[in-house]
Amino acid sequence: MLLEQINSPEQLKQRNVEELPKVAEEIRQFLIHSLSETGGHLASNLGVVELTIALHYLFDSPKDKLLWDVGHQAYVHKLLTGRGHLFPTLRQHQGLCGFPKMRESEHDVWETGHSSTSLSGAMGMAAARDIKGESYQVIPIIGDGALTGGMALEALNHIGEEKKNMIVILNDNEMSISPNVGALHNHLGRLRTNTGYNKLKDEVEALLRKIPSVGGPFANTLERIKDSLKYLVVSGVFFEHLGFTYLGPVDGHEIDELMEILRQAAHTKGPVLVHVVTKKGYGYEPAENDSVVYHGVGTYKIESGSLHKKSAKAPAYPAVFGETVIKLAEQNEKVVAITPAMITGSKLNAFQERFPKRCFDVGIAEQHAVTFAAGMATQGLKPILAIYSTFLQRGYDQLIHDVCRQNLDVVFAVDRAGFVGEDGETHQGVYDISFMRNQPNMVIMMPKDENEFQHMLYTATEHIHGPVAVRYSKGAGLGVQMDAAFKPIPVGKAEVLREGSDVALLAFGTMVSPALQTAEYLLEQGIQAKVINARFAKPLDEALLVELAREQMPVVTIEEACIQGGFGSAVLEFYANEGLTLPVLPLGIPDVYVEHGSVSQQLEEVGLTPSQMVTTITQFMAQKKQQV
Amino acid sequence: MLLEQINSPEQLKQRNVEELPKVAEEIRQFLIHSLSETGGHLASNLGVVELTIALHYLFDSPKDKLLWDVGHQAYVHKLLTGRGHLFPTLRQHQGLCGFPKMRESEHDVWETGHSSTSLSGAMGMAAARDIKGESYQVIPIIGDGALTGGMALEALNHIGEEKKNMIVILNDNEMSISPNVGALHNHLGRLRTNTGYNKLKDEVEALLRKIPSVGGPFANTLERIKDSLKYLVVSGVFFEHLGFTYLGPVDGHEIDELMEILRQAAHTKGPVLVHVVTKKGYGYEPAENDSVVYHGVGTYKIESGSLHKKSAKAPAYPAVFGETVIKLAEQNEKVVAITPAMITGSKLNAFQERFPKRCFDVGIAEQHAVTFAAGMATQGLKPILAIYSTFLQRGYDQLIHDVCRQNLDVVFAVDRAGFVGEDGETHQGVYDISFMRNQPNMVIMMPKDENEFQHMLYTATEHIHGPVAVRYSKGAGLGVQMDAAFKPIPVGKAEVLREGSDVALLAFGTMVSPALQTAEYLLEQGIQAKVINARFAKPLDEALLVELAREQMPVVTIEEACIQGGFGSAVLEFYANEGLTLPVLPLGIPDVYVEHGSVSQQLEEVGLTPSQMVTTITQFMAQKKQQV
Repeated sequence: MLLEQINSPEQLKQRNVEELPKVAEEIRQFLIHSLSETGGHLASNLGVVELTIALHYLFDSPKDKLLWDVGHQAYVHKLLTGRGHLFPTLRQHQGLCGFPKMRESEHDVWETGHSSTSLSGAMGMAAARDIKGESYQVIPIIGDGALTGGMALEALNHIGEEKKNMIVILNDNEMSISPNVGALHNHLGRLRTNTGYNKLKDEVEALLRKIPSVGGPFANTLERIKDSLKYLVVSGVFFEHLGFTYLGPVDGHEIDELMEILRQAAHTKGPVLVHVVTKKGYGYEPAENDSVVYHGVGTYKIESGSLHKKSAKAPAYPAVFGETVIKLAEQNEKVVAITPAMITGSKLNAFQERFPKRCFDVGIAEQHAVTFAAGMATQGLKPILAIYSTFLQRGYDQLIHDVCRQNLDVVFAVDRAGFVGEDGETHQGVYDISFMRNQPNMVIMMPKDENEFQHMLYTATEHIHGPVAVRYSKGAGLGVQMDAAFKPIPVGKAEVLREGSDVALLAFGTMVSPALQTAEYLLEQGIQAKVINARFAKPLDEALLVELAREQMPVVTIEEACIQGGFGSAVLEFYANEGLTLPVLPLGIPDVYVEHGSVSQQLEEVGLTPSQMVTTITQFMAQKKQQV
Repeated sequence: MLLEQINSPEQLKQRNVEELPKVAEEIRQFLIHSLSETGGHLASNLGVVELTIALHYLFDSPKDKLLWDVGHQAYVHKLLTGRGHLFPTLRQHQGLCGFPKMRESEHDVWETGHSSTSLSGAMGMAAARDIKGESYQVIPIIGDGALTGGMALEALNHIGEEKKNMIVILNDNEMSISPNVGALHNHLGRLRTNTGYNKLKDEVEALLRKIPSVGGPFANTLERIKDSLKYLVVSGVFFEHLGFTYLGPVDGHEIDELMEILRQAAHTKGPVLVHVVTKKGYGYEPAENDSVVYHGVGTYKIESGSLHKKSAKAPAYPAVFGETVIKLAEQNEKVVAITPAMITGSKLNAFQERFPKRCFDVGIAEQHAVTFAAGMATQGLKPILAIYSTFLQRGYDQLIHDVCRQNLDVVFAVDRAGFVGEDGETHQGVYDISFMRNQPNMVIMMPKDENEFQHMLYTATEHIHGPVAVRYSKGAGLGVQMDAAFKPIPVGKAEVLREGSDVALLAFGTMVSPALQTAEYLLEQGIQAKVINARFAKPLDEALLVELAREQMPVVTIEEACIQGGFGSAVLEFYANEGLTLPVLPLGIPDVYVEHGSVSQQLEEVGLTPSQMVTTITQFMAQKKQQV
């Protein structure tokens, strides 16, 4: 085994070039075996084995800076920088992070998780390098999906303008997480086949025929270009317009070719774009055949590739979302669905098949997704935007400026709200309540179970004018019976689930069930806890809050979201504004970033398990008694 | 006067085409005269007089949808849709809004204020139109500056993919607010001159010489393209790659030519981009000569164009910022400044002149701006990002994911925090505390006066590790003496400015001075108010808060920001977490959008003038007494 002797880029550099394909094969086998036990982002990493080897062989990390866009494809990089032994702990609590992580290694110079950030980070490093008079390479590696994100385009624009030395690796695998969309993608596709090229040519010619003055000569010219330039001309012109030297496309699984083009890039002045074509899942047939499933995968059998299914007691919220949106669309022809590149993640596949003209995958383009929804709403449609909580952060200004301020009927289906488990801190959906709650017109709700979830989606779509957010967990529901017919939930009405007179547990969404459990435990200590399903973080059930105050009941708010500005904070504000002084304890996620692990470990880390809450609540109540 | 007879698009359509230049001239004179009395966005509107006439003459608003990107160039549109009589109230309290406003007219189908949103909105309308089987034109009008915003590029990508019928008007005036930057702009520039075209050709040829296999033939081909295609080929290829039919460039001040090309666009299937070249300030020499000054201008003398200067008692905060950043950069070579297209607004002109290599205007690209700063910080620089509070919303995910999560030394100079006056609700800087406060590692401060401001910028740059936001008003300081030397402010330390034992006024930033005034008024009623300059919204001065609680002093928090999740909310959370139950009244901006007017009118609208606060506070204290 060569791999056993390679624990750093230096050790890799000591190998002969001829040995590198063997190193690649060993890495591939290592990943296939290791991830079969832990799960993880298999397909994308199998796609960049040769590319990562070539980069570390030729360049000098950490002096030269490698920035992995999105970052889930950095496993090979982690392997080559001495972290092979940590792979059994991948994405587990206190184990190896699934993304680049500065504290793990000096070779991780830029942390990622969200897409399209690497070019801006790289531009910052290149600018700093030049200001400080230093000399090193800055090398962002970005996928074709991430390149359509607006912030990547902003960065390309700036990089082109400033003409800094930089090598942008375009890792073009024709796929982001779901099949990619957008004209830019088409453009990349055109480079790869003559058919594609001819299609472009046809389009351009068709255009030119509409412009009489120049049609003839240009058409002739194109004929000649075609013969001499094949793919290069189109791409070259595109990136050149943005100030880049364009190199490629090159086969990303041929180390020799990769090395040659990277050497060329290293000697080119100014920004270079190296177009590398890779195949997700390369070298492992199950992953090659279904790179969507093998994008982020659980454990699997190596030979067959068959996945070990988790024994789910209840459907996960995203699955319920997918089914419910179909029902809503059947009942109301104004309903449309939008996703920024998450058809599969948001379980919209069936909807897309059923209503292809009412389903819009806009690619990795959250800003556009939000305002596109706003535009549709102005014309009387009912857009449902399925978006992960953490990615909605990228459409925040659009949520404020275009949706809420114009008071438009957009339903934000805020997926992956709360803890997300293995993806860790970059993906936690814990800020949405606090950043949405400051918007007038906004309604924010979260269901206690999957049945309430369907009713909330129905209520949001059919019974509320203006923007609504229904936030929901990525996890399983409670396994409750699903009602056959939708019913509306009164806006701003909470629901008392359990009576009690010693303390009120006011729980939001996923925390309702643990709150009920907590109440059981409290009862064992002789404490009678009232449990309320808050349902709404905005508007609050003010009548109920006033009632609790009248009863001088200590109140504990519980949410799977940050405490700062969250649901509990809303309750505190209400009481303060009403001049009602009563003991309120806001439980939620404190002021820290919570790293990867299982959701239950993450809940435990912040003290949100029922047994932990019992301790906190009894202390809180004892303190109250003391003060009285 | 023709204009007097034109109060609707229908009346415009009744004029002969030959009369339209006269209409244009009358509109121009109207704007020059009217705005000399009210101020407003003169230059950009003078630039679109002919374009707006042509659009309303040819198309059928409101059936056809006109979307004005940014929206400050919609005055001509407002004039032609029956709002001429309201111009004396422009941008004044309850007067004509400076931006498109749905409630003003059925012709305002899309509200704007921030840039780069029109294409996404238009795509939404076009999609809705096609789903509903309706038939109308959707026409976004977007400037070349706004087109570099990432969200506009995301939208172009989607529009190209979906091939919806849409006419995008590129209003190319070579200027956004400050001289434009970026490679895309260069590209547009190349279209306009043969010199530019030749430069591009040289660049492409230079590239091709580096790629031996194809250099020769392509160079020859380019020679031939040059002869037959002039400007069109370059631009055509660029937009065609994104799926658009490209028409233009056309002179935006020649109504005949405009009409011809717009007719052509109206008959073209799929998305069309019409490249219109206009001149900001066209027809009014002072504005043509200085479109930056005349972008958003106060009142002026028509003949000379000389501006009526406001008699400022004290320097405005942005001016103090500009001077302070120079001093900081003189003392520390690691200091660099970044602005997203606001060199002039953020008063960085002198800094740019003094330190051209340490000043980065990245164009309208807030997302990139934030992460670009993060990249520089990873390499040990001290980037100061000058960004308006309202535009920081667009870099929110980057603030979370790239800056705060990586705990990088980025200083956010949050300009235009609080009320902004005439620009109104789209520009109010009132959400930043609540959306930043949920981030671990973040420090948030706001100065009580311009002297403290310079010390805060110094403290942020030299004495704090990790992200810091210093938020400040666009308005004048208090006219206090400026210290000659910087001094550090202890992080998380508030400052007691006035002793009192009946109530504590805990004021943040701009509200400190009104709080002192309020305390004076309260004294007249026999109430002794303690006044505290909070300085920090994060971290709080916890020792001081505990002390207030011990004294059982009712606390009033006062901030020029939204109450939801704001500074007052932080205080409430602290007390709740500490189990301290005391009366706290959070004053700030309630849950409404506050429209245009003067800042003092806006403060009055939300009850934040000293005399209003006296009433609120005495009521609050009476209520407390009753409860006790």
